[in-house]
Amino acid sequence: MTPAYEKLLLQLKALPGLGYRSAERIAMHLLVERRDGLTDLIESLEAAKAAVGRCANCGNIAESELCGVCQDERRDGSKVCVVEHVPDLIAIERSSAWKGRYHVLHGKLSPIHGVGPEQLNFTSLQRRIQTGGVSEFVLALSNDIEGQATCHYIQEELVGSHPIEVTRIGFGLPSGGGVTFADSVTLRSALESRRAYH
Amino acid sequence: MTPAYEKLLLQLKALPGLGYRSAERIAMHLLVERRDGLTDLIESLEAAKAAVGRCANCGNIAESELCGVCQDERRDGSKVCVVEHVPDLIAIERSSAWKGRYHVLHGKLSPIHGVGPEQLNFTSLQRRIQTGGVSEFVLALSNDIEGQATCHYIQEELVGSHPIEVTRIGFGLPSGGGVTFADSVTLRSALESRRAYH
Repeated sequence: MTPAYEKLLLQLKALPGLGYRSAERIAMHLLVERRDGLTDLIESLEAAKAAVGRCANCGNIAESELCGVCQDERRDGSKVCVVEHVPDLIAIERSSAWKGRYHVLHGKLSPIHGVGPEQLNFTSLQRRIQTGGVSEFVLALSNDIEGQATCHYIQEELVGSHPIEVTRIGFGLPSGGGVTFADSVTLRSALESRRAYH
Repeated sequence: MTPAYEKLLLQLKALPGLGYRSAERIAMHLLVERRDGLTDLIESLEAAKAAVGRCANCGNIAESELCGVCQDERRDGSKVCVVEHVPDLIAIERSSAWKGRYHVLHGKLSPIHGVGPEQLNFTSLQRRIQTGGVSEFVLALSNDIEGQATCHYIQEELVGSHPIEVTRIGFGLPSGGGVTFADSVTLRSALESRRAYH
């Protein structure tokens, strides 16, 4: 059609979950039907880009050095739930089943996809282990080979001989599935039935 | 989570076809995984916002006063295909079955949704009828009550006694469905089997 439209379409198609038709529908909505919506969207994207970064402690999204969870004095800082992605954290928060803090890895170990320890948020996890104050890590990682490998790495390479209990989120998480798409009841039962990781 | 993130999520959820989970996935993708993608997306939106407007003649998206189709001297300006939305035009162009021009109404008459003749792109359609040069309107509108009412209005109120043949896109368009989602073969057969509207 027109160059600027085509370029926008390409950008929209690159977003997760959007195909050609859905990207076209959104582009048309913004360019033809709702021009004021376009302005609002640009402003929100700009504002989020400027404001939202990563929490220096846990890797969650944050609008200051520390995220809301790490700033919250009422949360139990000795218990840390380790998740792959921020939406996992959001899903667990939605279930109200966790009163501790979090650590977001931003992925899981996957040599086949070129994800090694350097690609994950392990540096600040190591710092949290060494500075002390953590008594338990609840590993809320995917129930698949890569999740397993990541659990193993955290216990063997990072926690090692530090006096920290390592548990793994328990029954209720469907096999092969991740944390993001589980419902609150499933997440609650999974958190309650956590068991020692060995 | 954080205010700027929540605001962006609201904006994304307002886009057609996106629910809470898909908006969350896109927001996370942009804010956590692909920050450079966020910059590119903002630039594309800004560029499209600045460059893309409506064609003064037919209502198609355009980056100058007239759109590519209206500027193209090889197109038969005497035959005008009338569509509801720009994606309808794009779908017909993709089928390569139409060598004439277009007129985009940006909707169809729907009193129940508050869409009357004033809300549609009828002013420039009236101008095209009055200045002459059009010998046929092919109405490629939805095969539903509102599409029917819009066809009726165009023939009775706008074309009236002007010597312009009014046809309606024909067999092949599924009942109750619109133009955007039909495949190219269906669109071709529909254009070929157009019949007089009476």
